[in-house]
Amino acid sequence: MSPWKAAQPGDPLHKVDTPALLLDLDAFERNLQRMADALRGRDIRLRAHAKSHKCPEIALRQVALGAVGICCQKAGEAAVFVEAGIKDVLVTNQVMGDAKLRRLAPLARKARIGVLVDDALQVKGLAAAAEAHGVTLDVYVEVNVGANRCGVAPGDEAVRLARQIVAGAGLRFAGLQCYHGPAQHLRSPQARMAAIAAAAEAAGMTRRAIEAAGIAVERVTGAGTGTFVHERDSGVFNEIQAGSYVFMDRDYGDNLRGEGDVAFEHALFVRTAVMSRATVERAIVDAGLKASSVDSGMPAVWQRPDLSYVKAADEHGVIATPASAALSLGDTLMLVPGHCDPTVNLYDELVCYRGDKVEALWPIAARGALL
Amino acid sequence: MSPWKAAQPGDPLHKVDTPALLLDLDAFERNLQRMADALRGRDIRLRAHAKSHKCPEIALRQVALGAVGICCQKAGEAAVFVEAGIKDVLVTNQVMGDAKLRRLAPLARKARIGVLVDDALQVKGLAAAAEAHGVTLDVYVEVNVGANRCGVAPGDEAVRLARQIVAGAGLRFAGLQCYHGPAQHLRSPQARMAAIAAAAEAAGMTRRAIEAAGIAVERVTGAGTGTFVHERDSGVFNEIQAGSYVFMDRDYGDNLRGEGDVAFEHALFVRTAVMSRATVERAIVDAGLKASSVDSGMPAVWQRPDLSYVKAADEHGVIATPASAALSLGDTLMLVPGHCDPTVNLYDELVCYRGDKVEALWPIAARGALL
Repeated sequence: MSPWKAAQPGDPLHKVDTPALLLDLDAFERNLQRMADALRGRDIRLRAHAKSHKCPEIALRQVALGAVGICCQKAGEAAVFVEAGIKDVLVTNQVMGDAKLRRLAPLARKARIGVLVDDALQVKGLAAAAEAHGVTLDVYVEVNVGANRCGVAPGDEAVRLARQIVAGAGLRFAGLQCYHGPAQHLRSPQARMAAIAAAAEAAGMTRRAIEAAGIAVERVTGAGTGTFVHERDSGVFNEIQAGSYVFMDRDYGDNLRGEGDVAFEHALFVRTAVMSRATVERAIVDAGLKASSVDSGMPAVWQRPDLSYVKAADEHGVIATPASAALSLGDTLMLVPGHCDPTVNLYDELVCYRGDKVEALWPIAARGALL
Repeated sequence: MSPWKAAQPGDPLHKVDTPALLLDLDAFERNLQRMADALRGRDIRLRAHAKSHKCPEIALRQVALGAVGICCQKAGEAAVFVEAGIKDVLVTNQVMGDAKLRRLAPLARKARIGVLVDDALQVKGLAAAAEAHGVTLDVYVEVNVGANRCGVAPGDEAVRLARQIVAGAGLRFAGLQCYHGPAQHLRSPQARMAAIAAAAEAAGMTRRAIEAAGIAVERVTGAGTGTFVHERDSGVFNEIQAGSYVFMDRDYGDNLRGEGDVAFEHALFVRTAVMSRATVERAIVDAGLKASSVDSGMPAVWQRPDLSYVKAADEHGVIATPASAALSLGDTLMLVPGHCDPTVNLYDELVCYRGDKVEALWPIAARGALL
């Protein structure tokens, strides 16, 4: 853990040490409002994905603006958010093994806890844990609607699992998880719409098959920032799991916007400083790949179209600088991370600012919660 | 921070929760010994790079086996290692700005502290900080010997900076930093040897130019795990900054080994479990890119040549599995990270094991020390 803090509340923005993870509170609050507006008056609710921010301060604001609760990917993340007072948490993942189940199940005494399955063995493990701890767990069948990751094939397999859940003491069949991650990063709006149309078709067919077996399907949940308007309008989904919308990142920003897509704005930045300017054609900044994740490509340089962040080493970033670029040793830049989720996971806190002043430091309390 | 620990000392290996970062102590100790052997009886010393491990327990063992101290990339990392009792720390980076200098300089009361420069402005800042805090700082001129990152061009520019350092109160000109990172990842041994021959030529020329100006050059330092035998044998370098050798990673393992190269072995693993096996052609494991950095490619699957880790999402890894693969839900695998440094930076502790038993948990105390 860093022995020092990058800033204190009340500091002027220009004094924030580098590299640091900054949240523009005005932009962030506008993003929260845009999502609330996009879902208002429709029969669809938001379960905000907290894997993106890992930050209880943000989760509490999402719930205050209407989110039913959060989802996250790890039992350890769930524990952090339950501890922070979130009352409805879905682990959008398979949770297996005694160590994890022994920790997950007791959380259901303090909050509604949901989890996914795509195999009978997982249902068995959850039922045993629920019984051992005297709790009820919400269980969703994950259906592969195009992501080709976890999830059973649409149709019969899902029906079999739903029956098994219904029969399990301590388990409540809560519905279907139908998440299509890759669709969100298709650049063309037509391609995204087509992918989600196919996903909704598979989800709807599976829901009807389970209902035909006499089992109610309360919830069809999924979607993320890049496609949620299509799931929202599908007539099949009734819950949205968007997370990145609070921050936006360079990768989502690269999507071409279609009619009806919501224009979220960049609110998350890595503040960095030029530490070497030994040649005219490049500047070296102090934010490398331990400061801004590069799995979805390099960060963008905010409001400096003349500059490109072209290469990341562990602790160095290389900025290509045309001869005309005004950029001196010690100058600071704001980077828009390529991918917000793993970037946030590199920091212990968010430096939250409004205008030119630091307003708060929010702990990224679930950072590193891998178990 | 994870609310839970993956293991406790004394646990059998098979009970370690997943994903977790594991250190095979036997392999690690053999790697330490191999490096000590490779430098023994030569006029060259090891300054182990702690950016790779960020772990005082490892640094103390490196010093016990003969390392003069450590190097690291951030002032915040230096603070962690000085606090842990390391007496000689070189920040192999430019350190700029009041906030950083105000924190770095006082460390020189407890340890020898070195830092790099490639601009007169940095020398000025260091001199002011040294004077303000009543300390002496070692200053190295960074020379660009082929990495094209930081560093002045070989020759005259370095002489000018050396003169300025010598004239600076509170500063001690300690030598030249001549690090060629990219050379270490050239796959062919001939290419690595040629790159370091050119680097050593540039370093030697610069050293002679400074000596011709009447300034002694005590130290020429640089090198890393992929090339250190060439710097060692160059007749120019007298200090080696290798770091990854303690762990090895998939990327270094992919280098073709040349005559004289030292065969370090993989000692660092991400333990992961299969959490979904919904189709025969893939298994989904619980270690994604928040558990094993993918900037240098996907992790390898240890001792399972039939399996390939083909895709990483944030919290999911996709393992391609031939129909013949014996791999069931709940099975565990050991991954060899693509790149050890940023992988270590994702965890709060190393689960150290010997044989089939967990022996210790070592805090990764400088994880996230970005400032």
